[in-house]
Amino acid sequence: MAVNYIPVSTLRPVAGVRLSTAAAGIRYKDRDDLLLVEIAEGSSVAGVFTQNRFCAAPVLLCRDFLKKQSPRFLVVNSGNANAGTGEKGLTNAKAVCGSLAELTGVSLEQVLPFSTGVIGEQLPVEPFTKAFTGALRSLDEDNWLSAAKAIMTTDTMPKAISSQLMIGDKQVTLTGIAKGAGMIEPNMATMLAYVATDAEISQNLLQSMLKQAVDLSFNSITVDGDTSTNDALILIATGKAGISIDEDQVAVFQQALNELCQHLAQSIIRDAEGATKFVTLSVQSAPDLETAQAIAFTVARSPLVKTALFASDPNWGRILAAIGRSPVKYLDISKLSLWLGDTQLIGAGQPVATYTEQAGQSEMENEEITIRIDLNDGDAKSTVWTSDLSHDYVTINAEYRS
Amino acid sequence: MAVNYIPVSTLRPVAGVRLSTAAAGIRYKDRDDLLLVEIAEGSSVAGVFTQNRFCAAPVLLCRDFLKKQSPRFLVVNSGNANAGTGEKGLTNAKAVCGSLAELTGVSLEQVLPFSTGVIGEQLPVEPFTKAFTGALRSLDEDNWLSAAKAIMTTDTMPKAISSQLMIGDKQVTLTGIAKGAGMIEPNMATMLAYVATDAEISQNLLQSMLKQAVDLSFNSITVDGDTSTNDALILIATGKAGISIDEDQVAVFQQALNELCQHLAQSIIRDAEGATKFVTLSVQSAPDLETAQAIAFTVARSPLVKTALFASDPNWGRILAAIGRSPVKYLDISKLSLWLGDTQLIGAGQPVATYTEQAGQSEMENEEITIRIDLNDGDAKSTVWTSDLSHDYVTINAEYRS
Repeated sequence: MAVNYIPVSTLRPVAGVRLSTAAAGIRYKDRDDLLLVEIAEGSSVAGVFTQNRFCAAPVLLCRDFLKKQSPRFLVVNSGNANAGTGEKGLTNAKAVCGSLAELTGVSLEQVLPFSTGVIGEQLPVEPFTKAFTGALRSLDEDNWLSAAKAIMTTDTMPKAISSQLMIGDKQVTLTGIAKGAGMIEPNMATMLAYVATDAEISQNLLQSMLKQAVDLSFNSITVDGDTSTNDALILIATGKAGISIDEDQVAVFQQALNELCQHLAQSIIRDAEGATKFVTLSVQSAPDLETAQAIAFTVARSPLVKTALFASDPNWGRILAAIGRSPVKYLDISKLSLWLGDTQLIGAGQPVATYTEQAGQSEMENEEITIRIDLNDGDAKSTVWTSDLSHDYVTINAEYRS
Repeated sequence: MAVNYIPVSTLRPVAGVRLSTAAAGIRYKDRDDLLLVEIAEGSSVAGVFTQNRFCAAPVLLCRDFLKKQSPRFLVVNSGNANAGTGEKGLTNAKAVCGSLAELTGVSLEQVLPFSTGVIGEQLPVEPFTKAFTGALRSLDEDNWLSAAKAIMTTDTMPKAISSQLMIGDKQVTLTGIAKGAGMIEPNMATMLAYVATDAEISQNLLQSMLKQAVDLSFNSITVDGDTSTNDALILIATGKAGISIDEDQVAVFQQALNELCQHLAQSIIRDAEGATKFVTLSVQSAPDLETAQAIAFTVARSPLVKTALFASDPNWGRILAAIGRSPVKYLDISKLSLWLGDTQLIGAGQPVATYTEQAGQSEMENEEITIRIDLNDGDAKSTVWTSDLSHDYVTINAEYRS
């Protein structure tokens, strides 16, 4: 059950992007597990991918293909990650792309493959080739929600959002979908996300805007510290809205993109495997960004902090212990303050006399908890979102595959 | 339930060390929670302590006192960590030491305090002062086993071992006890350990031998990546055996010390919170020690690997994913081999054709599992011991305190 599930609002089509889904039977039965995305010619496409050295076959191909040509199709499957599959995995992924290229008359490198699911099993090609003809026929601009559903694995809800903004006298639409619930950690999360806009944005600008948005969203979440072999986020700009984003409009568009990506990233945390809490780690007034991030992530990943959150137990000693072991070069604990929500626990490194267990308990019983760490030692800050560690996390990850 | 519990063998007294325990009622009811150790005059004492910046009041005092004088008493309590307790925590720990110093005529700095248990609650002094007189009367060389029991917190079994070796024509005894089950991670683990020998060893040599033994034992285990605020390991050499360890004998004594510390460290993993598996991570043929350690610890800490171990699921993709995200500067995955026990999964970075799911399953069903990662790229190696992540880990850590 997702924490404070936000129902998907209306998903707006993005001119120049058509989608379709199919139940190809790659692994799952009786549900869509294949997503086809058609991108209009002339669009810009940017991507960021997992930093995992054992990255999956489709990630290797995506990186390579994106350098060569602008993509016209995305092929996404759930159920099988095509990772840890060696040379044969590459051959299979290429066969999938080649089959679609042949049917549509584009080049093989214009088809980007994406896979998510179990690692270490070879990807069957035939289910794709069988499903493509029908999927091509049902391509439609209005299929974003079924697309969000088709790419789910351990997700309990589809993650999707649209937003619109006026740039000059033109309305610009942004629509994005994402999947991911476990193996979530920056650089990147076990995560696939596809975002499209009808604004016109040059390839270089698109890539740099994507990088900034990702740092503030998908690279600021963690469930379990495990990173995936398959993460990918693709941003498409079709240019069909009749407005080109230039220097004057970058800030306003970037803000909209950041917010959309944050919404999707936070949806992943709300739906994190076994999550019962949505937790914001806010480290403030740090000497530098690295220190702020190191502390935020160390606390966010701590199994002991996460089990205390699950138990709604204001066992703040575990937070201090996690701060204390953060891999930072310098930390003056005598300046540090710590808050649970609005309740202060530590001031200038010392327990606050006014703190009561009851006040801490009351903060911990909330479903949305903010842990604020103020280092009082600079201007840098970092915000990280995470979940708790529950019995259901163990159940889901002990039973996944079986 | 500990994994392959090894019953404590006979614990041999170490001449020059007397121990006693008491039910002081510091937090627990109806069990011993106080340990007193008396060290004969003229002994050498070495110590290593947690690297956590939020280290506990007793750790601050131990570090300070050890620099000034050779200790004559150790006072250890379970149930309350006296960590996160600020200035008042220091005052209370000093009061405990001062009370014992007054009763015994030693100086305050000759009493080393140790605490383990809940973080963030003030340590009551009175239970100590009330218990000291009786405890002093019952000091005895044969109390090692009850000492091991008195320092337990979430431990399900006492951890203790003795060994003897001949050095020249003299028999030398080593006896050690440890506690720890969660918040286990190097530098150091949530762990207290006390080891004594009747050999004579100079202070400097003792400290350097302790450092080497710890790196190969307590600093090579992890349960949950969380480090404690209170870890301490004390090594006492009383010199009562009539043999002084000089250069010629260092190697043989070091080996015995390493083995004793490894036994105690492995006992902590066997008794790790919720553990159902005892797992050895062996990284071989690495370019350097840092690479070997980084990979071993990244896999050992991975919640997804640990839940797969709990499920006896040969989901080796998760091991690859953890290797792939290890924080190493350089890794040539095309040289890498991976084994589960005697079953090879990956060779030269590719799935091994002979591998069967059945073979992997059979390895994973063992209670003792070795994951061997051969980088085929150098001479360095690292061995790390860890446990799985089970429902009981969550239960224990969600319910501890309540």
